[in-house]
Amino acid sequence: MSRINRLSAYPAGRITLREVGLRDGLQIVRSWPSTAAKIDWLTREHAAGVRHFELGSFLPAARFPQFADLPALIDAAGALPGLHAAVLTLNERAMDAAFASPISEVVCVVSATEEHSLANIRRSRADSVALVRRAAQMRDAQAPDVLVNAGIAMALGCSITGAVDPSEVLRLAEACLDAGADIVGIADTVGYAGPREVAMLCDGMTRLCGDTPFIVHLHDTRGTGIANAAAALDHGAPVLDGALAGLGGCPFAPGATGNVVFEDLAYLCERMGFATGIDIPALAAIRGILATEMPDETLFGALARSGPPANMAWRA
Amino acid sequence: MSRINRLSAYPAGRITLREVGLRDGLQIVRSWPSTAAKIDWLTREHAAGVRHFELGSFLPAARFPQFADLPALIDAAGALPGLHAAVLTLNERAMDAAFASPISEVVCVVSATEEHSLANIRRSRADSVALVRRAAQMRDAQAPDVLVNAGIAMALGCSITGAVDPSEVLRLAEACLDAGADIVGIADTVGYAGPREVAMLCDGMTRLCGDTPFIVHLHDTRGTGIANAAAALDHGAPVLDGALAGLGGCPFAPGATGNVVFEDLAYLCERMGFATGIDIPALAAIRGILATEMPDETLFGALARSGPPANMAWRA
Repeated sequence: MSRINRLSAYPAGRITLREVGLRDGLQIVRSWPSTAAKIDWLTREHAAGVRHFELGSFLPAARFPQFADLPALIDAAGALPGLHAAVLTLNERAMDAAFASPISEVVCVVSATEEHSLANIRRSRADSVALVRRAAQMRDAQAPDVLVNAGIAMALGCSITGAVDPSEVLRLAEACLDAGADIVGIADTVGYAGPREVAMLCDGMTRLCGDTPFIVHLHDTRGTGIANAAAALDHGAPVLDGALAGLGGCPFAPGATGNVVFEDLAYLCERMGFATGIDIPALAAIRGILATEMPDETLFGALARSGPPANMAWRA
Repeated sequence: MSRINRLSAYPAGRITLREVGLRDGLQIVRSWPSTAAKIDWLTREHAAGVRHFELGSFLPAARFPQFADLPALIDAAGALPGLHAAVLTLNERAMDAAFASPISEVVCVVSATEEHSLANIRRSRADSVALVRRAAQMRDAQAPDVLVNAGIAMALGCSITGAVDPSEVLRLAEACLDAGADIVGIADTVGYAGPREVAMLCDGMTRLCGDTPFIVHLHDTRGTGIANAAAALDHGAPVLDGALAGLGGCPFAPGATGNVVFEDLAYLCERMGFATGIDIPALAAIRGILATEMPDETLFGALARSGPPANMAWRA
C-alpha cells in the first residue's frame, strides 16, 4: 500500500525522464556550478517540465566538494511543486543523512559483476544487496514514504570482466526487489552496450518487474547512447536517465563521455511518440548555465545546436 | 544481366557502408583538405577496409573549388583495388564528364517534395526523374558498367514543407527505378527523422526494391542519427552512408551538423551483429587528417574518444 504510493512518483503508462546531471554529471568534473547556479539549473528544468532529479550524493565534502551543498539543493527542490528528489547513498551514514532530509528517493548501487563490486565498491554483491535491504529497513523505520532505488552498475558491460551475462543481472535485480527495493535501475556504466543488448535486458526486466517500473541509465561513450535509448523505449523501459549536455565522464574510463544527453533523449522520446511533458527548447537553453559555470567541460548534444524541426509536428 | 553485374558492387546478404565525406562532407565547409591529404584519407580508409566512396561532385570549379581536384581523386581511387567510386552529377554536363572518367557510379538527386525541388534544384520532380532516365541512357551508350544511383533528398522531412508522406517517397523511388536507376537512396537531408519514420520508410523500400539494394543516407542534426541507423539496420537497409567525424553541414539548415559519423556507424553495425570488414580504430585514426587540414571544422563522434570496448568481443 505504502509501496504503491511511493511508486506513484513513476506513473504507469507514460515515460519518465530523470535528470542525473547534478549527481552523475558532476561526479568526476574539474569544476562545477556554484550552489546558486545549481539551484537555477534545477529551477529552470522544473519550469521546463522536468520532475525527476538526482540531486547529489551524500559523500564526505572533503573528498567530494562538488556535493557539499547537497542540503541546500534538497531545500531548493522541496520548494518546487511536484519535484521528485533522489540522492545517492553508498553507505549507512549516507542513508541516515538522507532519511533525515526531505528527499523522495535514495539510490543504492550494486555492481553486476563480483570483480567490479570488490575492486570498485569494495564490497561483495551479496553485501551490496544486504545494504539495499538495510536501506529498506531504515526507510520503513525512519521515512516510510521514501522510495528505495537499487541501481545495478555495469549491467551492460564491465570495465573489468567485459561482457556481462544478462541472466546474472536479472538475478541481481530480483535479489534487490526481494531485499525491499521499490525500483531497480540497469546502468551501462562504461557505455559498452549496443541496441541489441539493451533490448534483450529490457525484455528481461519487463518480464521480471511486471507493472513495477524499472530505470535504464545509459552512457554515450561510443555513440550508441541515443540508439540504446530508442531500443529501451521499444522494449518497455518506462524510466530513462540522462544529463543536460551529456555531462559526466566515467571514473573507470578516462576520456570517456558521460550520460546520454538529456535534451536529445527528451527529443527522441517525443519523436518516437512518447510524451515527456518537457519544453525541449527551454531545456536546451539551460545549457547556458553549464557553459558559464563549467567552462572547461565539453558540452555534448545535437538538439541544442539545431533545435527541433521548425516546420512540422514533432511532439508526441 | 549487365545490371546484375553492376549491382555486385553492393553484395546481397551483408551491410555496405559508403563514405560520403569527400563529397557531402565538403559541400559547405570553409576549408578543405589539400588534394594530397584527400588522397591520403581515401587511401587510409581503403586500407582500413572501406570500399565505397563518394569522391566529389562534377561542379564548376569557380563556385565549388573544394571539388576542383575530383579528377585527381578519381585517378587515385582507380589505383586502389576493389574501390567503388561514386560521383555526384547534377546535370548532363556533369554526367558527360563522369561517364568519360573511370568511375563506378553516378549519383543523381531527386527531391521528395515538389516545393523543395523547384526552390533548391530549380527543376520539377518529373524533370529530375527524366534526368535519371537520361543518365541511364547515357550510361548505356557511353559506360555500360557504371551504376546509376538516384538519391531522394528530403525523403524523411523537408526544410520547406515539413513532414513528407512516405508513400510519395516510395512512388518517386519506383519512378526512379522505372527510369533506369540501379539503386535508390533515401536521404534525411535536414535530419528531421526519428527511428519510427526510418523504420517505416525502410519497410516500404524493402517491399519496393525486393532483392535490389537501397541506400539510407542520414544526418545527425538532432542527435537521432545513430538511432535512425539502428532502425534502418533493423528494417532491412543494406547500404548506409556516413562521413568521417560527421563532416558536413546542411545548406538548408545553418549551424546544423552533418552526416552520421562514419566510425560511430561502423561500430554500431558491428555491435548489432553486422560485419563491416572495417578496422574501426584505424578508421577513427584517420580523423587526424581532418584535424590538421580543416582546423576550423568541429569533428564529431564518440567512438574516436573512447575506442571500442577493450576487454570484450564487440565485432560481428
